Amino acid sequence: MSIYSGAPHFLVAVDNIIFGFDGEKLKILLVHRHIEPEKGKWSLMGGFIGQNERPDTAALRVVRELTGISDIYMEHFEVFGEPQRDPIERTISIAYFTLIDINKYQHQINHAYSAAWFPLADAPQLIFDHDEMVKSALQKLRYKAALHPVLFELLPEKFTIPQITILYEEVYGIQLDKRNFARKLLSLELLIKLNEKEKESSKKGAFYYRLNEKNYKEKFGAMTKFIPFPYV
Amino acid sequence: MSIYSGAPHFLVAVDNIIFGFDGEKLKILLVHRHIEPEKGKWSLMGGFIGQNERPDTAALRVVRELTGISDIYMEHFEVFGEPQRDPIERTISIAYFTLIDINKYQHQINHAYSAAWFPLADAPQLIFDHDEMVKSALQKLRYKAALHPVLFELLPEKFTIPQITILYEEVYGIQLDKRNFARKLLSLELLIKLNEKEKESSKKGAFYYRLNEKNYKEKFGAMTKFIPFPYV
Repeated sequence: MSIYSGAPHFLVAVDNIIFGFDGEKLKILLVHRHIEPEKGKWSLMGGFIGQNERPDTAALRVVRELTGISDIYMEHFEVFGEPQRDPIERTISIAYFTLIDINKYQHQINHAYSAAWFPLADAPQLIFDHDEMVKSALQKLRYKAALHPVLFELLPEKFTIPQITILYEEVYGIQLDKRNFARKLLSLELLIKLNEKEKESSKKGAFYYRLNEKNYKEKFGAMTKFIPFPYV
Repeated sequence: MSIYSGAPHFLVAVDNIIFGFDGEKLKILLVHRHIEPEKGKWSLMGGFIGQNERPDTAALRVVRELTGISDIYMEHFEVFGEPQRDPIERTISIAYFTLIDINKYQHQINHAYSAAWFPLADAPQLIFDHDEMVKSALQKLRYKAALHPVLFELLPEKFTIPQITILYEEVYGIQLDKRNFARKLLSLELLIKLNEKEKESSKKGAFYYRLNEKNYKEKFGAMTKFIPFPYV
C-alpha cells in the first residue's frame, strides 16, 4: 500500500482579512455567515479551496466575489490548523490579508453575504478563531508597513499628507509627530504633489498628492524605516 | 446538503528546509526518498499531517524524527499548492524553514531516511517543487536575518567573530568588510567575550564569544539592520 492512500484527507479553506481605510478609520470587511454552524454571526470572508484551484487563486476569488475588486494587494501570513477549530469538520485554513482602496468597493455582487465594513476597533466578535486571525493579520501588517510603503495600497489615487498620517496612526494605534512624519514621508520621494487642494478638512486646505509609481516599485523592497521599532 | 460535504478533501503535508552551518558552509539536510514516486532521489524532509495533528507539530515531528533534535528555531514561510505539484495525488504543502546547531545533530534515528548534509551551493536536484521551496526559504531567511539576529541559532554555544562573519557571507553570498562587520556586531551588545581562544584557524587565534541570552531575546524584535538593503 502506498503511503499516500493511508494518509488522512482534510478540508482546506482560505480566510481573508480585508483591510480598508475611509480617511478616518482602519476598517475590516466582514460577512454575515449564511451557513451553519454559527449562521447569522459575523465572520471573515473565506471559502473552501476548489479541486483544481491554487490557494492564492481561491483567496483572490473570495475577495472578488465579495467586493467586485480584482486589483488588490494580498499576502499569505499564517496557517490556522488547530484540529478542533471548526466544530463541523476539521478544516485547515490558509490565511491571507488584503489591502484595498475602499473607494473602489462596489456593493457585493452576491447579496447573500451581507457584507459590511467595521472599524477595526469596533468590530463584532467573530466565529471560530477569526478574532485571532484578525489580530495576527494586524500584527503582520504592522511589521510590513514599518519597513515597506504598503499602506499606500489603502489610499485613493489622490490623498493628502494629513490623510496618510491618520492612516499610520490608525494602523499602529499611536499618535505621530505630524510635522516630523510629513517631513520623513516627503523625503522618501514616493509622492508627487498635485496642483489641487483638499478644502473640506481645514480652512487653509491641504495639497493633494499621488504616488510616484516608479519610485514606489523601486523603493518597495528597500525597507525604509517608516515607524521606529519596537512600535508598541 | 451542507457546504462542507460538497467540498473537496486534500492530502496536506509539511516540508521542512533544515539549515545548518559547519563553520565554513551553509548547508541543508536532505533525505533519500524511500517511497514512490521518485524513490531514491533527494528530497526535503517532510510528511503528511496526521488526523489530529497541528501543521506546526507535524513540522517539528519530522525534524525530530530525522535529527533527534527538538530544540530548534522554526518558521512557516509559504504554502505550496499548485494542483499538479505531486504526480500521484494533489498534496498541499505547508512549508517551514528550520535553523539547527549542526553540532547537536545526531545520526538519524531512522536509517531508512539516509539523510545527508549538502552545502547549499552544491545541493543535488530535488524532487517535485522542492528546489523552488529551498530558493524561497533562503530568500525568507535573508530577509529575516537582515533585521533580526536569527542566524545565531545556527552557531554552537561558543563561536568566534570570524565564524559569524563567514556565516553571514554564506547566507547572503556576499563579501563583507570584516572589520566593519565585527565592529557593528560588537556594538549590538549581543555577545559575551570568553577568556578562551580558538587557535586552529589562525596563528594569532580568535577569542570565543557566547550569546547574551537576555539581550538576544530583548533585541530579537528590535529590527537592527544587520545587512544593508537591498542585499543583492
